[in-house]
Amino acid sequence: MVSFATSLTKESIVDVEGVISVPDKLITGATQHVEIQVRKLYCISRAVPNLPFNIEDASQSKTEFKKAEESGEQLVRVGQDTKLNNRGLDLRTPANQAIFRVKSVGVNKGRQFLLSKNFVEIFTPKVIAGSSEGGAEVFKLDYKGKPACLAQSPQLHKQMTICGGFDRVFEVGPVFRAENSYTHRHLCEFVGLDIEMEIKEHYYEVCDIVEELFVEIFNHLNDNCCKELEVIKLQYPFQPIKYLPKRLTYDEGVRMLKEAGVEIEPMGDLSTEAEKKLGKLVSDKYNTDFFILTKFPLGIRPFYTMPCHDNSEYSNSFDVFLRGEEIISGSQRIHDPEMLTKRAEQCGIDVETISTYMDSFRNATRLHGGFGAGLERIVMLFCGLNNIRKCSLFPRDPQRLNPLNDPACLPMTILFLSFFSFHLIKP
Amino acid sequence: MVSFATSLTKESIVDVEGVISVPDKLITGATQHVEIQVRKLYCISRAVPNLPFNIEDASQSKTEFKKAEESGEQLVRVGQDTKLNNRGLDLRTPANQAIFRVKSVGVNKGRQFLLSKNFVEIFTPKVIAGSSEGGAEVFKLDYKGKPACLAQSPQLHKQMTICGGFDRVFEVGPVFRAENSYTHRHLCEFVGLDIEMEIKEHYYEVCDIVEELFVEIFNHLNDNCCKELEVIKLQYPFQPIKYLPKRLTYDEGVRMLKEAGVEIEPMGDLSTEAEKKLGKLVSDKYNTDFFILTKFPLGIRPFYTMPCHDNSEYSNSFDVFLRGEEIISGSQRIHDPEMLTKRAEQCGIDVETISTYMDSFRNATRLHGGFGAGLERIVMLFCGLNNIRKCSLFPRDPQRLNPLNDPACLPMTILFLSFFSFHLIKP
Repeated sequence: MVSFATSLTKESIVDVEGVISVPDKLITGATQHVEIQVRKLYCISRAVPNLPFNIEDASQSKTEFKKAEESGEQLVRVGQDTKLNNRGLDLRTPANQAIFRVKSVGVNKGRQFLLSKNFVEIFTPKVIAGSSEGGAEVFKLDYKGKPACLAQSPQLHKQMTICGGFDRVFEVGPVFRAENSYTHRHLCEFVGLDIEMEIKEHYYEVCDIVEELFVEIFNHLNDNCCKELEVIKLQYPFQPIKYLPKRLTYDEGVRMLKEAGVEIEPMGDLSTEAEKKLGKLVSDKYNTDFFILTKFPLGIRPFYTMPCHDNSEYSNSFDVFLRGEEIISGSQRIHDPEMLTKRAEQCGIDVETISTYMDSFRNATRLHGGFGAGLERIVMLFCGLNNIRKCSLFPRDPQRLNPLNDPACLPMTILFLSFFSFHLIKP
Repeated sequence: MVSFATSLTKESIVDVEGVISVPDKLITGATQHVEIQVRKLYCISRAVPNLPFNIEDASQSKTEFKKAEESGEQLVRVGQDTKLNNRGLDLRTPANQAIFRVKSVGVNKGRQFLLSKNFVEIFTPKVIAGSSEGGAEVFKLDYKGKPACLAQSPQLHKQMTICGGFDRVFEVGPVFRAENSYTHRHLCEFVGLDIEMEIKEHYYEVCDIVEELFVEIFNHLNDNCCKELEVIKLQYPFQPIKYLPKRLTYDEGVRMLKEAGVEIEPMGDLSTEAEKKLGKLVSDKYNTDFFILTKFPLGIRPFYTMPCHDNSEYSNSFDVFLRGEEIISGSQRIHDPEMLTKRAEQCGIDVETISTYMDSFRNATRLHGGFGAGLERIVMLFCGLNNIRKCSLFPRDPQRLNPLNDPACLPMTILFLSFFSFHLIKP
């Protein structure tokens, strides 16, 4: 049996039958106080002897690499592409196990909170006619001979559900963006958390929900995922976020940036660097990594955004930031069909393509607003990770559609390995 | 103010300021014991005077139509297409409000149950390279120049997640089927509830989860959605389901059908009529509308289904039925890469297109199984509704991609209305 056991490859799955006993002295290993005296050993599933990489290698932290470097030791580095190309193996690292548990616990706490606030969970179609928002690129497909595309957000349908008499709705579902963004924080497919709700008096009611929702989620994760967060920290060290909510207007934010010497285009969108800088300034001044910027210039917001009633240069809108990166965009929506048509035309949108959306408002709609958030980005920032791909089981970016980047890379790997072995054997 | 109030169109949204008082005698209407003495009245959003239909008309039940017919009264019938073409208005009927609340409450109870059983909620990509299962038609799209399609199920990715070291996972997300099925129970896009889990001893462990999960959901709905279920019943009368779980083998089911005189193709799939008939027979014999048929012939199951170890003509698989209609398909999966390759080839699948899935198993995988269910179909059958479109906010079928079936039908409607008005005025 010993010879059978030693012949088993790493990562193979076994069934063990034995007697549990308390050893005389502590054993070296994870479980120190008990041992199994193996009587029978079955191999359920045998792994290939040459795994694409070792789990231990894929689990090394920066600290360990640094330590090894100092001591002159050579550690095997497993690159992000290699990991993602073999995601079925890569997911077995302790940090990955923890990241996706945190994601599951977090999103479910969020749902629970929303349900307790009388939100109804909805599911809107992902295949739609026309594009859901103007401007950005969409994935196009053929729907039984009709031109269709993948929804860039549930924006129009969640608003139509509010038109349909629901007070408060939310959706957790995939969102598709065809933009060619090669950054640490963009994906072509991610999980959106979208909310739409009746506004009684002021769009700050939507901001209230944002603050309550995320404080609730963050508290819950810190209280209930301590073990997971510690495991993530082991491989990817991070400082816990400070999340005392803070609200500032866009103008106040711009003023803070100007005072700190950052040049901002007047009434323009904040660049990624400006966002980072503002995050740092707010963190220093208000001791929080979680804040809302309100009252954005109308010109840089989508066509359905409600202008401020006292100054149409500005809008009833907001962005939410975590560790200096935008995680949420929200606003009050225009509910008046004439104003909506005018704004759509001003933004260069062909109103014919969204006529059913426009028509919904002709049957009267209550005041409403909402927001959209990306789950992966929130998990990434909460855990201080450096790349959004770490928070998506099987990430999709402009170059990655499959764990194997391209079927063509398989023969390349084999070629490379043969070449390598050849050189190893030859000399 | 009275003249302003009477000028308001039906369905318009108003803000009212007034004094709440107790009237001397009961008022006719929904709230009989209190009244608001209106001081101020604002119209927030004015509906067009000619709504596509009246909410009262769209809310009529079969019983009311029958009563009206008997008394010679004429009620306006609003057809399903007209309703769906104006879904933003149609959703305001009390039954629709209730149906989507039941869906939200039910799915969230399901998630809660699964989380309590140590399942992790996952989100797998909906845009994939290749087709997720052989045979059926898929929606194809262009992904940055690469051929891609919409996932027909999260099958391959949820299994890869199990390969990735997770014991138990579930997903609630959209599922896309391009089949040309024009039935009361098929949609081209629906919400799938998918589960995948480690099997310790026997695939009946998966059936155990099915039974516990749905009994939990149905109990919860009956206890917590009484009001909603009553409202649905008012428009669409139904008998509550009986859901004491029952398990039968496929062979037992076939025998029951044969004894009742129904011809069944040996080792073939059950037709919709046979399913209905079997549901009736099981209901009569075992007093339940909820049962599981196990051990299906291997030949009619997908390539990844594990054959029975003692008879490879059969498989470790099952279907679940509610009111005589299939709601769930499940099985133990093949975890051995060689057997999987052989079965895929036997089923005529190009293994190259799913090579990363196949490769996952080479790194060893525990025994596992799972199932997939469609939310809309479950809600439909639980509430005894006659069409799945009633359980999808914005249904997608081979002909319907939009609340407005086709932009061309808008001018048609206008044409029809003008024609109608003309005739009304003319005589």
